[in-house]
Amino acid sequence: MKVQRVEMFVCPSATPADTSGLQALADAGKVKPDTLVALVGKTEGTGAHDDWGRVWADVALREWTARLLGVPVDEVAKHVIFVLSGGCPGVITPHIAAVTREWIDAPERKADDKRLVVGRSGSDAIAPEEVGRMGMIHKVADATRAAMKDAGLTDPKDVHLVMVKVPGLTVASIKAAESRGKTVVSHDLTFGPEGAGVYANDGAALGVALALGEVKEPALSDEVVRRNWDLYSEVAMTSSGGEKRHGEVVVFGNSTASASPLRIGHAVTRDFIDAAGVRHALRVAGLRFQDGLPDEADLDRLVHVFAKSVIPGSDQIRGRRITLLDDGHAYEIGKALGGMLVASVTGRTTNYVSGGERNSHQGPPGGNIVAAVVRHE
Amino acid sequence: MKVQRVEMFVCPSATPADTSGLQALADAGKVKPDTLVALVGKTEGTGAHDDWGRVWADVALREWTARLLGVPVDEVAKHVIFVLSGGCPGVITPHIAAVTREWIDAPERKADDKRLVVGRSGSDAIAPEEVGRMGMIHKVADATRAAMKDAGLTDPKDVHLVMVKVPGLTVASIKAAESRGKTVVSHDLTFGPEGAGVYANDGAALGVALALGEVKEPALSDEVVRRNWDLYSEVAMTSSGGEKRHGEVVVFGNSTASASPLRIGHAVTRDFIDAAGVRHALRVAGLRFQDGLPDEADLDRLVHVFAKSVIPGSDQIRGRRITLLDDGHAYEIGKALGGMLVASVTGRTTNYVSGGERNSHQGPPGGNIVAAVVRHE
Amino acid sequence: MKVQRVEMFVCPSATPADTSGLQALADAGKVKPDTLVALVGKTEGTGAHDDWGRVWADVALREWTARLLGVPVDEVAKHVIFVLSGGCPGVITPHIAAVTREWIDAPERKADDKRLVVGRSGSDAIAPEEVGRMGMIHKVADATRAAMKDAGLTDPKDVHLVMVKVPGLTVASIKAAESRGKTVVSHDLTFGPEGAGVYANDGAALGVALALGEVKEPALSDEVVRRNWDLYSEVAMTSSGGEKRHGEVVVFGNSTASASPLRIGHAVTRDFIDAAGVRHALRVAGLRFQDGLPDEADLDRLVHVFAKSVIPGSDQIRGRRITLLDDGHAYEIGKALGGMLVASVTGRTTNYVSGGERNSHQGPPGGNIVAAVVRHE
Amino acid sequence: MKVQRVEMFVCPSATPADTSGLQALADAGKVKPDTLVALVGKTEGTGAHDDWGRVWADVALREWTARLLGVPVDEVAKHVIFVLSGGCPGVITPHIAAVTREWIDAPERKADDKRLVVGRSGSDAIAPEEVGRMGMIHKVADATRAAMKDAGLTDPKDVHLVMVKVPGLTVASIKAAESRGKTVVSHDLTFGPEGAGVYANDGAALGVALALGEVKEPALSDEVVRRNWDLYSEVAMTSSGGEKRHGEVVVFGNSTASASPLRIGHAVTRDFIDAAGVRHALRVAGLRFQDGLPDEADLDRLVHVFAKSVIPGSDQIRGRRITLLDDGHAYEIGKALGGMLVASVTGRTTNYVSGGERNSHQGPPGGNIVAAVVRHE
Repeated sequence: MKVQRVEMFVCPSATPADTSGLQALADAGKVKPDTLVALVGKTEGTGAHDDWGRVWADVALREWTARLLGVPVDEVAKHVIFVLSGGCPGVITPHIAAVTREWIDAPERKADDKRLVVGRSGSDAIAPEEVGRMGMIHKVADATRAAMKDAGLTDPKDVHLVMVKVPGLTVASIKAAESRGKTVVSHDLTFGPEGAGVYANDGAALGVALALGEVKEPALSDEVVRRNWDLYSEVAMTSSGGEKRHGEVVVFGNSTASASPLRIGHAVTRDFIDAAGVRHALRVAGLRFQDGLPDEADLDRLVHVFAKSVIPGSDQIRGRRITLLDDGHAYEIGKALGGMLVASVTGRTTNYVSGGERNSHQGPPGGNIVAAVVRHE
Repeated sequence: MKVQRVEMFVCPSATPADTSGLQALADAGKVKPDTLVALVGKTEGTGAHDDWGRVWADVALREWTARLLGVPVDEVAKHVIFVLSGGCPGVITPHIAAVTREWIDAPERKADDKRLVVGRSGSDAIAPEEVGRMGMIHKVADATRAAMKDAGLTDPKDVHLVMVKVPGLTVASIKAAESRGKTVVSHDLTFGPEGAGVYANDGAALGVALALGEVKEPALSDEVVRRNWDLYSEVAMTSSGGEKRHGEVVVFGNSTASASPLRIGHAVTRDFIDAAGVRHALRVAGLRFQDGLPDEADLDRLVHVFAKSVIPGSDQIRGRRITLLDDGHAYEIGKALGGMLVASVTGRTTNYVSGGERNSHQGPPGGNIVAAVVRHE
Repeated sequence: MKVQRVEMFVCPSATPADTSGLQALADAGKVKPDTLVALVGKTEGTGAHDDWGRVWADVALREWTARLLGVPVDEVAKHVIFVLSGGCPGVITPHIAAVTREWIDAPERKADDKRLVVGRSGSDAIAPEEVGRMGMIHKVADATRAAMKDAGLTDPKDVHLVMVKVPGLTVASIKAAESRGKTVVSHDLTFGPEGAGVYANDGAALGVALALGEVKEPALSDEVVRRNWDLYSEVAMTSSGGEKRHGEVVVFGNSTASASPLRIGHAVTRDFIDAAGVRHALRVAGLRFQDGLPDEADLDRLVHVFAKSVIPGSDQIRGRRITLLDDGHAYEIGKALGGMLVASVTGRTTNYVSGGERNSHQGPPGGNIVAAVVRHE
Repeated sequence: MKVQRVEMFVCPSATPADTSGLQALADAGKVKPDTLVALVGKTEGTGAHDDWGRVWADVALREWTARLLGVPVDEVAKHVIFVLSGGCPGVITPHIAAVTREWIDAPERKADDKRLVVGRSGSDAIAPEEVGRMGMIHKVADATRAAMKDAGLTDPKDVHLVMVKVPGLTVASIKAAESRGKTVVSHDLTFGPEGAGVYANDGAALGVALALGEVKEPALSDEVVRRNWDLYSEVAMTSSGGEKRHGEVVVFGNSTASASPLRIGHAVTRDFIDAAGVRHALRVAGLRFQDGLPDEADLDRLVHVFAKSVIPGSDQIRGRRITLLDDGHAYEIGKALGGMLVASVTGRTTNYVSGGERNSHQGPPGGNIVAAVVRHE
């Protein structure tokens, strides 16, 4: 049967525009024009919405990819999905992970030896008035189902990570919507607790949750977004950008129809300091443990970790008060703390950790999502 | 024989000026005018040199202590040592730990069952021109020896934590020194890498190292301070303040001449993400471990953890680049990361974590000091 | 006839808790228990909602006032209004202005020689669900009318500055309101563009505007708050605090029934860099000008300046783009810039400048309110 | 005679990499490959040493210039000098000013109608051990004299602005110097008061001062750099970068041998809030004044303003305390305040304002340099 063979290559970046690691992969034949499906990375810079490090990285990576693929820069998005998360505070090494997929003939695997597959899809256009509301939720849900199909996945239990980028709001798009007599979810363009950015992210997360059956449709309405935290996805990592008009979804899961050397697993932390949750994700992805900890000799099989670091909505952790919610630098510090939680478990700093926002439908209340990819050859 | 019985009570603070926890201890007879020897805590606020949260806490705690002791506020320092570290970024719960000591008749313990003792001492006056130089190193070394004597400790191996406060430099004290024809170590009053604050802290750390034999006298000179990082103490946690004229030292160690229910232990981390180093400190202080991790059922015996979180001088951790040294908020983030490293191991946020400065003679290059106090009754 | 004689004394503060300047005024008989009506000041610290400099100042000033008045601390608010604005970034000197009022027999002044009067009032209790909505607007309007009456002012044209403090929202008050089936204006507790803090401030500003006839009642509704910027007051400076349950209003104006040596005037700037607007305020308060600029020899008659520094809602100033709206430190920088605008005109740094929030019904779109008090003996 | 005709075109930038304004100038024939001599601008971003906005702008501008000139990117620096100052906090509009120079035949002007000329020069290589010391001072002085000669200027009084870029220190260059047995001026790589960045800037400023006779050679030594603030230049605006090996100098002055439509003038402010100093610079550059203020109708003749905004070394302005020196964001706020001081006088936000560092030999103690270019056709 035709099955996927997916690889993931993690390249540290010396500067935001550093494509030398990717070029080395291309030179070695590991990344090819017809196999590259996604570039996912952390870029150094402020992490704010006008983070020029991230913008510069985006420009440089699209230019590099256009050269690799031999297509104009504005067609690159049709072939490769870009997920760049800005801000590497603390112990997060700037890096780009290249995801490749090729289709080869191989026998079906056994059910207890599923391997990594990846699927992609674009959503229908999402109007400004739909951002952070049911309109976005439904369109992201549809795109998630399409991406699962592209991945060859049918059982939501096999889905371990869904990365989504959706349109956010801008001064211009709000004006356009209001001139059509529509309202928008927020006039706050920041990632603050009532900001359009987090509404967009959380609408997208609920869309994933709906597609995967984590949340049932009757429970959903415009009113529950960023209000009812009992509704959430355990596998959605979402972001938004004002320049986008459609959603983009990339699904990672395990399948018997895969010849990949990699397997993915995920877990959620129960609170902000829960290192056990991080360890659990490594364990379910198949890393060997010894004495309750990842076996150091086995850690080179760990290919990559993807983690959210959403700040809890409460000022209490295990019954004790913290002052993070009052901190003017909470967004940056919250992200940095997630980086430490993961790095202190994996023993490495090259982890994909995004977050810093307060509360989210990405992961349970107070907890965060961690997904790990482990090599199994 | 007359031996010490030392106790340590950790009170979370609802605001910088919250003394209700201490008052409850006083009301319960656990803290008495003649047993209180030190108040050590983390106060919420910016953590900068003009952190009004810390200043307000200092004023409020001295007023409370004056009332408890029945002495004027300006005499409080003769009886009780205050070590307040400002800034609780991330997952550090603001708190005050009260240390009490009483002398009781009890038999000597066995050598393998030493318990906590504490000793204090003030240094001779330290002139501005001595700050961060040999003058300070010698005076802190003398005071450390005196504090060890007060604690009844003779073997440096029994010393697990030495907290020191020394004079820093101010605009006024620099002017005074220069008008006497003296030079000072820096005109930079910040905690930056050439700042007077870190020179003072590091001079004090080398003083402790000299007293404990961790560094030999011939290796020391004005020139090695903040230059030769191979010289360091594994037990010194130091801070400085412009308002001080003398050094203050409080030594924590274990002794057979103790009837304390507590034992202290320490370890150093090998780098900034080394959770194993934190676990090691808990282990040597006598906490039970299970499956490589602290036994959750035993964690209520953990009384307190004291940790430094000095930022490494290199931009590499285990061979990977981080951007922390370039971060405008590195001081706050560096402190926050240490808080996460400890909290993710202890499962609690009420830990004493100070730091944020770049490089130090407090702990080995790249690593940090962690001391833990465990109850053993 | 019985008329007011109002004085204003501006005391620089060496620390947040510095009451020495006030004590000197009390010792000199200039401030007396029965004449002190308000303490208005800028306190050093972060300016954020957990600014411990401001909190410490508030505690210290209330304790000092309680001692002066011979009343318990919790009764001080019945006698003296406190308006403390946190954050002195840039060139704003921390200070406290004491406002005193005594009633003396004096003839009525001529209409062209009106002098300063002051009036105070408390509002009815404002429920959380009223914050930033019509409920608050009406209650602040009523209190403003009462304060005008207390000041002996009937013509809104004679009112030049209305300082208001109102309740904000807190986690607890939101929960209380929602448990009663009520909604609140925002769940965002910050001073961001959709934050409860700015909604409270702007509800209060519209209340003042309603009382003074600057805005007509039919134009008002819950929906216009922070949406229709054409509605505004030219004299309202408002702030909010989660701990408050009632609004407090203090009105400054000029009257023929005054024996004060002071006169107040106000103006609005047309945009964020409009120094001419600041000069205009000084001119209408009666300062002499020479060559288009305040006469330096006359500047010692300038007693005090009160100015807002609200950040414009647009990223354009006179047709050119600025990046302030995208700046993570916009709140602090926006306040600092107002301080510079005023100081560069007055030639002094001891000015009351509050602000940093984005858009407001305090002043016209893009512009800000400036009030000046000038001595006229 | 052959004389210079110098033009200056100021293009607002929509993003750091926006070259559309420059391209429009090239398309219109106003900027040509053989006339472009310098690009001087403010770029949006953090303004810190790893400001990716500035780095991206630098890359984009060099690529654009290489295309314009038809030379490889790494040869661009031989033809065009780039002075990009990062950080546009507050009311500083991001922009690039293109300076062009052509040589035409024209009669000598009268002595009272001198016009703008420009000259450039590179210095000899500056070794790390020379940074911030006499070695750098002498080499910058030589290059300044050469740039004056290139401009055709002989009288220092005709020089109104000298922009200099010099090598700073880096981890690598410090290591290289020390391995050769040399010392360096600082191990602090920041722009803090003892940072290598400010030592480099101030060494360069003293080099200019030496060349122009503002400071006499016997007064200079390594020891006076950042110690004796009575030594300074009134026309030097300097910056440093770790990547550079040589100094670059561009001199602006007025000459009778010029057919330029522009004239330059400069002044210094006496302290940080001195708007009169800014006005004075406009006046000496030939702008018309009315009623003590720039004549609004004449302001369109104002082509550009270049200003420093160095933070004073004292916490007192005109006898009143400010807290700027204690502010963790002082670097950004200090720059923003200079932007407001200038914008509030010029009525526009597109001004070149650099600064934020504490104390400098660029300008007198507490004051700052302001240069203005005015059109005179």
